[in-house]
Amino acid sequence: MSDSLSLHIALIHYPVYNKHREVIASAVSGLDLHDIARAARTYGVRSFSVVTPLADQQKLARRIVAHWTDGFGATYNPNRKEALSLVNVRASLQDVVDDISNSDQVKPKTVITDAKPHLHQISYERLTQMLKHGSPYLLLFGTAWGLTEDFIDKADYVLSPIEGRGSYNHLSVRSAAAIILDRLL
Amino acid sequence: MSDSLSLHIALIHYPVYNKHREVIASAVSGLDLHDIARAARTYGVRSFSVVTPLADQQKLARRIVAHWTDGFGATYNPNRKEALSLVNVRASLQDVVDDISNSDQVKPKTVITDAKPHLHQISYERLTQMLKHGSPYLLLFGTAWGLTEDFIDKADYVLSPIEGRGSYNHLSVRSAAAIILDRLL
Repeated sequence: MSDSLSLHIALIHYPVYNKHREVIASAVSGLDLHDIARAARTYGVRSFSVVTPLADQQKLARRIVAHWTDGFGATYNPNRKEALSLVNVRASLQDVVDDISNSDQVKPKTVITDAKPHLHQISYERLTQMLKHGSPYLLLFGTAWGLTEDFIDKADYVLSPIEGRGSYNHLSVRSAAAIILDRLL
Repeated sequence: MSDSLSLHIALIHYPVYNKHREVIASAVSGLDLHDIARAARTYGVRSFSVVTPLADQQKLARRIVAHWTDGFGATYNPNRKEALSLVNVRASLQDVVDDISNSDQVKPKTVITDAKPHLHQISYERLTQMLKHGSPYLLLFGTAWGLTEDFIDKADYVLSPIEGRGSYNHLSVRSAAAIILDRLL
């Protein structure tokens, strides 16, 4: 991408809620990696970080990425290689923030995406405008039943939830990520 | 949904191209059903038809739907039940058109979604306006490497492809369906 937008995304596997609102580290899904990487590549996102503190899950995520960037998949389907080469596997949000601070020479602002409304939330139009100023933003997506309240409270911004037509709002994180990137970029 | 829009969608497993541009019937993916049904329910789509001429694939699709609408899944996750109850499994596009003609008392116009640009294509704004007139439209999504040219030629309209930022355009059908419904509805 030759423009000056610096949008990064991260898929957070810890700390998230399970169905019973207990705090867990969720399992990495190969399909989340593929779908979100392809959407990220389509919309010119700078990097896509998969965040989990669990060593075996990091290893799994790295194995999936390596299959498509260096292994058999790289020659079988070069489009996937192009998408999955955006992926970094990291242990924590702090590691991702450090990466971007190093590459962009300025600390990124963090932006939560969540299915629920929050008191202080910003609109898609507002964030699109903010992105045009060129400083880096890091969009955070939760897995399982969503990011914990503590985690959300520590972020710089919360983006408005996606609202469809009616009260039903149970998109997969894959669908939500695609829609949010389309709206912002 | 209490409004008068009548948008239906269908996921077509035949006739589509494979990687080598041969015409095939693709395999049904449970994840496509889940993700697209959840997006369809979120945006107030009237029905979601899974189209395959293969009896074993119809059976597989019906088993997945039944698990979540009548089986264990219905009590485990009622949100999935609400989404998957939109799903019909049909052998051909003609069967879907007949269903809608019966329920809406008027034959739906068919609208192709495709990743490639076509000579006569309509914009998202235009289709949104057309939907407001209340007559039924049936949006067609291809699987595998896309709908065949013959199939596309027979449809009433072709929707503009999704364009991101740059030349890369390899979204999954799950991501594309979510973005298109968000743009239209």
